[in-house]
Amino acid sequence: MERAVSGLGAAAGVAVGTACPIHAIAAAEREAGSPDDERAAIANAIQAAAAELATLVAAQSGEAAEILGFQGAMLEDEALAEGAFAAIADGAAAHDAWTAALDVEIAGYLAADDPYFQARSSDLVDIRDRVLRHLFGLDEFKAEPGAVLVAEDLQPSQFLAMDWSHGGAIALGAGSPQSHVAMLARARAVPMVVGLGPAWEALSGLLAVDGDAGLVIVDPSPATLATTQRRVAARREAAGEAERRRLEPAITRDGVLVQVSINVAGLDDIAGLPVEACDGIGLTRTEFLAMSSIDDEERQFALYRALVRWAKGRPVTIRTLDAGGDKPIPGYTADNESNPFLGLRGIRLSLRHPDRFGVQLRALARAAAEGPVRIMLPMVTRQDEIDDAARLLDRAVGELRACGIAHARPQLGVMVEVPALAFAIAQIRADFLSIGSNDLTQYAAAAARDNPAVSSYADTLHPGILGLIGHVARYGSTGGRPVSLCGDAGADPRAIPALLRAGLRSLSVAPGLVAATKASIRAVDLSQEPEHGL
Amino acid sequence: MERAVSGLGAAAGVAVGTACPIHAIAAAEREAGSPDDERAAIANAIQAAAAELATLVAAQSGEAAEILGFQGAMLEDEALAEGAFAAIADGAAAHDAWTAALDVEIAGYLAADDPYFQARSSDLVDIRDRVLRHLFGLDEFKAEPGAVLVAEDLQPSQFLAMDWSHGGAIALGAGSPQSHVAMLARARAVPMVVGLGPAWEALSGLLAVDGDAGLVIVDPSPATLATTQRRVAARREAAGEAERRRLEPAITRDGVLVQVSINVAGLDDIAGLPVEACDGIGLTRTEFLAMSSIDDEERQFALYRALVRWAKGRPVTIRTLDAGGDKPIPGYTADNESNPFLGLRGIRLSLRHPDRFGVQLRALARAAAEGPVRIMLPMVTRQDEIDDAARLLDRAVGELRACGIAHARPQLGVMVEVPALAFAIAQIRADFLSIGSNDLTQYAAAAARDNPAVSSYADTLHPGILGLIGHVARYGSTGGRPVSLCGDAGADPRAIPALLRAGLRSLSVAPGLVAATKASIRAVDLSQEPEHGL
Repeated sequence: MERAVSGLGAAAGVAVGTACPIHAIAAAEREAGSPDDERAAIANAIQAAAAELATLVAAQSGEAAEILGFQGAMLEDEALAEGAFAAIADGAAAHDAWTAALDVEIAGYLAADDPYFQARSSDLVDIRDRVLRHLFGLDEFKAEPGAVLVAEDLQPSQFLAMDWSHGGAIALGAGSPQSHVAMLARARAVPMVVGLGPAWEALSGLLAVDGDAGLVIVDPSPATLATTQRRVAARREAAGEAERRRLEPAITRDGVLVQVSINVAGLDDIAGLPVEACDGIGLTRTEFLAMSSIDDEERQFALYRALVRWAKGRPVTIRTLDAGGDKPIPGYTADNESNPFLGLRGIRLSLRHPDRFGVQLRALARAAAEGPVRIMLPMVTRQDEIDDAARLLDRAVGELRACGIAHARPQLGVMVEVPALAFAIAQIRADFLSIGSNDLTQYAAAAARDNPAVSSYADTLHPGILGLIGHVARYGSTGGRPVSLCGDAGADPRAIPALLRAGLRSLSVAPGLVAATKASIRAVDLSQEPEHGL
Repeated sequence: MERAVSGLGAAAGVAVGTACPIHAIAAAEREAGSPDDERAAIANAIQAAAAELATLVAAQSGEAAEILGFQGAMLEDEALAEGAFAAIADGAAAHDAWTAALDVEIAGYLAADDPYFQARSSDLVDIRDRVLRHLFGLDEFKAEPGAVLVAEDLQPSQFLAMDWSHGGAIALGAGSPQSHVAMLARARAVPMVVGLGPAWEALSGLLAVDGDAGLVIVDPSPATLATTQRRVAARREAAGEAERRRLEPAITRDGVLVQVSINVAGLDDIAGLPVEACDGIGLTRTEFLAMSSIDDEERQFALYRALVRWAKGRPVTIRTLDAGGDKPIPGYTADNESNPFLGLRGIRLSLRHPDRFGVQLRALARAAAEGPVRIMLPMVTRQDEIDDAARLLDRAVGELRACGIAHARPQLGVMVEVPALAFAIAQIRADFLSIGSNDLTQYAAAAARDNPAVSSYADTLHPGILGLIGHVARYGSTGGRPVSLCGDAGADPRAIPALLRAGLRSLSVAPGLVAATKASIRAVDLSQEPEHGL
């Protein structure tokens, strides 16, 4: 008998597959040897796990590579295994000693109030289990291609260990559409449903996962199966068509051209991407790019210049350091803020560190000598912040001129993500505007992006938030200021029609979503009334 | 030589007075006796401190009484002194033992990420020093009446220990206009400047504190002194005039009537207040009122009914439980939210606890049998939350009808504090609207109210926030829905002209600020262009 379990759609699409339940790694039978044997066994297992991680890092790019690289660095820290080696010297078995040592660390991270540290506990679970697998001689977790991963929650590295090229889907008891795994799933077009509750444990056999409707169908009837397979086929067909037309401009059915740019966090993101696929770079996140080179002008310059050269004359928008909020930088951002999303972050922090900010502004002005660079200021609330940044940019340009260093003055624009700025946009003077829909949504809805308990409130399609986006877009068209949007909503097929109707004519999306975004745009007909009255 | 130190105005007004620096309590000479003597000494000091606190509580009302009562309860908890008694048994001197025991507690609270617990550390500092004073035989801290309190920061109880009826002012190195002390200062019209930085330590001698300009003038010249004294006299004169006219309606110079209601948190707040002074109760905070009676319908009913009877037919607006954010209720609100202001709070939480919510709705419907009760829902984001609450209210009314209990169906309105709701207000159906300007401001400006580092961004006079308020007010006048405002801005003389120009015709303020608010309204002429273009 077919039955449906309902949750929350976290990544669109449908798929049929066999349930592959993922539970915590179970202790296998293992005979402990002498302390010397055990010491060698754990050392070998750690080494094998580290080598495996290094291979995985090399095969990934962008955020995925960053997460795995971070785990590799943790594993190489000798302090991590110290407790395990001590216990082994006292006669403990290697697997018991390692599990106990890691569980202490995991508990410590879990107890932290800071979500950044809490999130690190997942990485430690991954590390613990990866080493245990080698110790027990178990194979790496591998679901059959096309399987439906069923779990309480999923770690990013579990997602990355799966080969998604043959289909498959994800069904989680907990989880959130805002999680890292959900982001990865959307980027790879893996259907995903979260928030199924305790019902996830009973999911088995053949499942149909409907990420559009937020449903998991258990034992689908032949009719359901046929419908689902038709949707899968139609989707695959559409995706192929979208991919074939990736380099063509995005024009709505009624002939309206929409610019599609890309969001990047480093050179990895553009590796292999033909620049003709996009209209430039709409967002460069420099808190990732420049974490290790925050005070290194030459290193930043080299990176910015590489982006400008890649773009071949198309605009390259680079956001100045957006630290704070959920992106702490030890020694720079404030500790212990009770509400870091509402705290000292982005331009607020940059203006308190004018010398450090100047390093980035000089690197940007130097890169601008080679092509159109647009500087985007994050978290702007008031005009005086733009004016202060403009003065610092003037100073940076003056310094370069005095030293005879090649440069040009980039355009200076703002990321529109603070609701008060969005509402007062007609009174704001800036060279360009880019709506940061993720933060704008969480502030306008007063619902933190990273809190699953309120994630349903953080909806860009809320009429008040769409209205605010339309308000900014209208000002752009009447005030002659380019307006773009660079949040997740820009690549969300459900949101794209509403965003275009709100007046936006420029979207910036993850490189892997350019083809699908263009296809969504081509399906819109702005001369027709929308079906659901948005 | 006169010189000015600039900070941030936290409470309006000017005052001249002699600097009274407040430092941490210094250890006095004290000979330690035998363990028995020391045990008796600390027990006596604790008892004396507790008695002192009880006297202070009785002399205060509202929030002040609550803070001091909380300290009294902490001091009576025997666990607090356990460590000190143990150390004394081991031969430590009473003052060392007490200081060490309390400092451990203080450090624990300070290390907490939760602002609620951090704030409690101030109370422990107060408790520690109060007991030490008794142990050392020092008098309670008492500045000369009319003095200017100068400190790094000030505790609410230090504020409350001062007799402000003869003038005086506050000048702080740190602090925030959003702090509890700043709220108390505004309520008592004590001029206050915060954020002076390290310069506060050099403040001495005669000071002129200008809370309007955010300035402290050291060694004021005779001319400055004369000007300041004239301003003080004019202010006193105006305050006397305002007080005399407290019971009269508030009408602008050009003849526009503005309703002035009051914000309350319990019966203490209306004790001795003639109801004729106001147009009803615009906000009742029930998370304070009902903390101990959250599941007690009879107790809530008795309190609500007392307010309705006091109001003699004027509307009584009662906000349903607004827990969460900076108002945690152990066992009810979520722990460890990374951004509690953007979390599960207000109506979001109430709708997840329909039975508990039903207790409050029944108590409200019963009180409505005796006069016009208006139920106000906090943190509403979407229409479906209002609809869900309306269904629960219907159910509560149905239950009362079935039991034959006297009741009436109260009006059901919303607190407008989520920016997305404010922008979409034309699509919202509710019986009335009340703008919660404190939260609306912190969300619209993406700046937490309780974070001094970003408090300058949380400004209701930001054109985008005033614009949003005007948007809601316009909808009220065209849509025939009563619109009020019940945040701090409603009693801020700098904000009142702008709020009336934005279209508001109803403000709700602290009972102690009714007279001054009415005076500010009477000074506005809406037929004239504003001086500064607001």
